[in-house]
Amino acid sequence: MNSYHVTLTRQGRAVTSASDEIVLARLREIVGDEHVLIDPEKVEPYAQDAVKEKFPPEAVVLPRDADEIAAILRLANERRFPVTARGGGVGYTGGAVPVDGGIVIGTDRMNRIKEIHADDLYVITEPGVTTYALQQAVEAHNLFYPPDPSSYKNSFIGGNIAENAGGIRSAKYGVTKHYVLGLEVVTPTGEIARVGGLTSKNVVGFDLTGLICGSEGMLGIITEATLRLLPLPEATATVRATFRTMTEACACVPRFNRARVTPVAIEVLDRNAIRAVESEFAFGFGEDAGALLLVAVDGHADEVERASRVVEEVVKDGGGFDVLRSGNREEEEKLWDVRRALSPAIKKFGTMKFNEDVVVPRSRVPELIEQVVEIGKRHETFVVNFGHAGDGNIHVNFMCDRDDPDAMRRARAAVRDTFAVSVNLGGTISGEHGIGYVKAPYLDMALGASTIDMMRRIKQALDPNGILNPGKMFV
Amino acid sequence: MNSYHVTLTRQGRAVTSASDEIVLARLREIVGDEHVLIDPEKVEPYAQDAVKEKFPPEAVVLPRDADEIAAILRLANERRFPVTARGGGVGYTGGAVPVDGGIVIGTDRMNRIKEIHADDLYVITEPGVTTYALQQAVEAHNLFYPPDPSSYKNSFIGGNIAENAGGIRSAKYGVTKHYVLGLEVVTPTGEIARVGGLTSKNVVGFDLTGLICGSEGMLGIITEATLRLLPLPEATATVRATFRTMTEACACVPRFNRARVTPVAIEVLDRNAIRAVESEFAFGFGEDAGALLLVAVDGHADEVERASRVVEEVVKDGGGFDVLRSGNREEEEKLWDVRRALSPAIKKFGTMKFNEDVVVPRSRVPELIEQVVEIGKRHETFVVNFGHAGDGNIHVNFMCDRDDPDAMRRARAAVRDTFAVSVNLGGTISGEHGIGYVKAPYLDMALGASTIDMMRRIKQALDPNGILNPGKMFV
Repeated sequence: MNSYHVTLTRQGRAVTSASDEIVLARLREIVGDEHVLIDPEKVEPYAQDAVKEKFPPEAVVLPRDADEIAAILRLANERRFPVTARGGGVGYTGGAVPVDGGIVIGTDRMNRIKEIHADDLYVITEPGVTTYALQQAVEAHNLFYPPDPSSYKNSFIGGNIAENAGGIRSAKYGVTKHYVLGLEVVTPTGEIARVGGLTSKNVVGFDLTGLICGSEGMLGIITEATLRLLPLPEATATVRATFRTMTEACACVPRFNRARVTPVAIEVLDRNAIRAVESEFAFGFGEDAGALLLVAVDGHADEVERASRVVEEVVKDGGGFDVLRSGNREEEEKLWDVRRALSPAIKKFGTMKFNEDVVVPRSRVPELIEQVVEIGKRHETFVVNFGHAGDGNIHVNFMCDRDDPDAMRRARAAVRDTFAVSVNLGGTISGEHGIGYVKAPYLDMALGASTIDMMRRIKQALDPNGILNPGKMFV
Repeated sequence: MNSYHVTLTRQGRAVTSASDEIVLARLREIVGDEHVLIDPEKVEPYAQDAVKEKFPPEAVVLPRDADEIAAILRLANERRFPVTARGGGVGYTGGAVPVDGGIVIGTDRMNRIKEIHADDLYVITEPGVTTYALQQAVEAHNLFYPPDPSSYKNSFIGGNIAENAGGIRSAKYGVTKHYVLGLEVVTPTGEIARVGGLTSKNVVGFDLTGLICGSEGMLGIITEATLRLLPLPEATATVRATFRTMTEACACVPRFNRARVTPVAIEVLDRNAIRAVESEFAFGFGEDAGALLLVAVDGHADEVERASRVVEEVVKDGGGFDVLRSGNREEEEKLWDVRRALSPAIKKFGTMKFNEDVVVPRSRVPELIEQVVEIGKRHETFVVNFGHAGDGNIHVNFMCDRDDPDAMRRARAAVRDTFAVSVNLGGTISGEHGIGYVKAPYLDMALGASTIDMMRRIKQALDPNGILNPGKMFV
């Protein structure tokens, strides 16, 4: 038990035990004995996500299909126990962890890609397929599924949709919700509903597909998804450049567009991020490296050649130095090593990483980072900033020692100040990670009371007994 | 009074008169005397949309801002009269007409483009700006707002969002909802709520922006929109080709993608459509013209040159003849004349046009059209098919005489059969036009009971008194 648990169960939501023998027997009837886990050791992997706070469920249930999930949810409404759906369990806001107890529904067994329609540019998949497996499967047909959260090797498509995952390609290709054509969902009350369809044009009734996407498993459990695909771009190339200041680096971003290039990705690292990777891996960045830009373009080979040269010119004109442009796929992979080195490199700065994913209009990124560095100093907390300069989504990482309560308190204060700055700059508190239980206390910093009230009304209308993923989003 | 009216007011929704003197006095207080219209002549233009069935409102109110609209909706909840918001009034399903009486809120006066942010690629606008005016305003900054419903010269942005408007560019660029970053809306109960924001990455709470988009004015009145923009493509080009059969023409569509070209638009006309424009305007199409394809590409000038040559090759390889490729903007405009000639050309085939906008996975378009032609024969109704082959959204036009009850009955039967065929082919009953009151009787052909139930619950939760746009979507 921890403090979250106590706070959240006070709200009068579903709190009946899921672990009584009658409930367990019914669950076993629905999914089969071997797919109900209660052994603490087997349940433990389902107790946490990337936040690494443990909330062990009373049972983990591994259904095979929508019918089984519907039966589980009808039981949950009858007996009033909480149900939390889980994909890859790699989220940063606790969306998949059962903070109010009850059961976790693992979608691990629902891992079939059902149909790939190359001519019609869509794929139908179960939720338990990893983003990577889906990408690989469609690329084999010369097709392209653009959303690419950095956890793509472990994240499940169901979780990507539930969280409306982003990624580095969103500067050109948008986010997960732009690729979801239709869903089969089990509603909180245990009905199976199909929303959306197979086509990108579809205006039949309210856009429930859009509503479920990003609803953090609170409005329904995704049991099948139809995803829009694109033709696989023929080629890609990357330009890497170092700048003296973040302001110089970010000033290049709109200049690419003015030169009529829309990069796939524009990634930026701040001074601390560069120092961190340099001290761990010795890439050879000098003391004058105040910001690093990685700019990728894609398309037809000729167009990629042209566009990458334009990018090279723009960064050079903008004060970039040590400019490298990839000539082939291998060189390109090498240029991205520095980005991949970041996560391991910053680990040494603390056992706890407050990985926040604030977002601001992209022209405000330099101001954001300037103020975040100031916040880090004020709260004596080491901070590393990097992220998606093309869409203004910056990963602010406050590092501290998990076992030092004072350092944790200071880091939390730094997080709150960062959220305030983001909102003040016209942005918001999460671009990709969602709210979950971790950011729930801050929701009203980003949204007005009438907006939150609309969300609560929708939740109440679809989940009158508060069964599905309680303890999230609203405090 | 007509039959719709009687049916709809039977449902126990808000039916109190809006035209009593107390209500009118309060409305005049809120917006000023001159902005409350009750004179039948002044009210009349607000009684219908493109369906051309008249439902005169009891009063038309022309507010200036969200505060005034919020006050009107609070009054409507107090006195229980229906409120229907109206944009350009050019819809095809009656979304903006007050079938249950009450007042119409005209957004005509809310017609300012507030801010254009070229570097951050967004525009903030009031809802009463026409799509065309918005496009022109952003193009002056070398920016691009892709959604382009064919009514773009008269449609309002507010209506585009409420209906999630499509258009011909959606094959590459998607639909309106892909460009809405944030909204200010007045809720059915008269609260002002901001949803979404200024950034394309934003996962703070449920996606109410997506929910409002396409909600047909039933969940809120849009008072401000923040729209995502793209850099304006440098060049465009079009290829026009004639084919003997629809199957041949449509078989080219996936071949463009396989050749790694993503056209902006792929428009198709069937044999009857070609005959219609030919008989009116003598373009010179022969008897062997069974289908016509118009394929547009855009991008950097070199890329457009390359892509349009690829398109030309693909259509020639696919059996296309009389192939024309534009060399400049003027030639391109000329190639599109045939598409623009369609609406005037088919008018002579009837005073009533049942303009349906069904959508199927694009590989099923030839089957759809074959079956629709069969349906036309069966019900002795002339039918013209054209539309968006790139996204499977086909405009099926059944023509008849508005004053011939038997012809009208046969046309309605043909419409129902067409919807059934579309759903059977994996598609749905509306790609762009929405449901309104016109398609409400067919909603359950496309959606299951549990899906409709979710929609009803959301409507009930946000609009407990059934004030906002009653008589739509659900029968």
